[in-house]
Amino acid sequence: MSVAPKSTNITWHGANVTQLEREQLTDQKGCVVWLTGLSGSGKSTVARRVEQLLLERGVFTYVLDGDNVRHGLNKDLGFAPAERTENIRRVGEVAALFSDSCAVTVTAFISPYRDDRNAVRESVQSGRFFEALVDTPLEVCESRDPKGLYEKARAGIIPNFTGISAPYEAPDSPEIVVDTSGTVDDSAGQVINALVNAGIIAG
Amino acid sequence: MSVAPKSTNITWHGANVTQLEREQLTDQKGCVVWLTGLSGSGKSTVARRVEQLLLERGVFTYVLDGDNVRHGLNKDLGFAPAERTENIRRVGEVAALFSDSCAVTVTAFISPYRDDRNAVRESVQSGRFFEALVDTPLEVCESRDPKGLYEKARAGIIPNFTGISAPYEAPDSPEIVVDTSGTVDDSAGQVINALVNAGIIAG
Repeated sequence: MSVAPKSTNITWHGANVTQLEREQLTDQKGCVVWLTGLSGSGKSTVARRVEQLLLERGVFTYVLDGDNVRHGLNKDLGFAPAERTENIRRVGEVAALFSDSCAVTVTAFISPYRDDRNAVRESVQSGRFFEALVDTPLEVCESRDPKGLYEKARAGIIPNFTGISAPYEAPDSPEIVVDTSGTVDDSAGQVINALVNAGIIAG
Repeated sequence: MSVAPKSTNITWHGANVTQLEREQLTDQKGCVVWLTGLSGSGKSTVARRVEQLLLERGVFTYVLDGDNVRHGLNKDLGFAPAERTENIRRVGEVAALFSDSCAVTVTAFISPYRDDRNAVRESVQSGRFFEALVDTPLEVCESRDPKGLYEKARAGIIPNFTGISAPYEAPDSPEIVVDTSGTVDDSAGQVINALVNAGIIAG
């Protein structure tokens, strides 16, 4: 699980296409919208609706979420703290690549640890990382419990469950706070508006 | 380095946007062009020229190469055989995600092991994986030796060097064979033509 640099004999290639040229050719600006929040808070639902709305606007976009990444890239990782950290590190690096490609990249991971999220922020181009707290209270998440996970966590069947038996470290100053007390479109609209206001996408 | 599935408690999300809808909305088809060949064969040069030509055609595209991936996602991996395999496994999974996003994805890795490349093929949607042998003879690569690596390999300073002290398993039936005896534009054109002929991009 060590992530200390071990690679040698490598140098950066000068890409023939500069970032500015890529932005002009694609007519896009890449970014990472990093949704974070409790299990059941609505991260994937919001991410998928944002994806749909952006694609309908003609914006090239992609969603990375725990489910599709854990079946592929991170299928070797479990849920122990060091593995969760490595999970988030890899997703952050992939999100940075997608952002570099000029895609509006939306991620949907609980990502409970502040240090892990801050490390991702460091790997993304400055000004292109939007930490987005999906701000659904624990009691609401637990009452929804779409996968029955809270019930199992309370029963001790699932250990180290975020919000119950493991910490959730909320962001100190997220770029976006997603209020989920309204409709899914309301929540997704808050993300879209933030991207418009930041000059990432057209209004 | 184990890649046995360990994740539990996860299910596939039904993406709200189907692959067909995504292709229609982006007016693109995703694919992976997997360049493979010896060190100094011209993989990155061809990849970067293909990228440039595709972006100029308005095709959303991205290059993954050993240099940018090894500074980020795979910075924890060295060059021992198992680490090379894990390097290629992760790149293959990321390439599959980019392809799924509808990007024309070009990778530039020596990727000397047939089994590793075949595993990547399995992770990419059927019909969207183009194994592309950059077919530069060893003696030409060694005479170019742009990074002085062959000289070090011959002197025994760099161990396990592909083509010298470690095997290169050439593809049996690659979708594309890139002849690099002409100009870079000639070589890149061979890739572009193959994508046109396969119906991935417009002619």
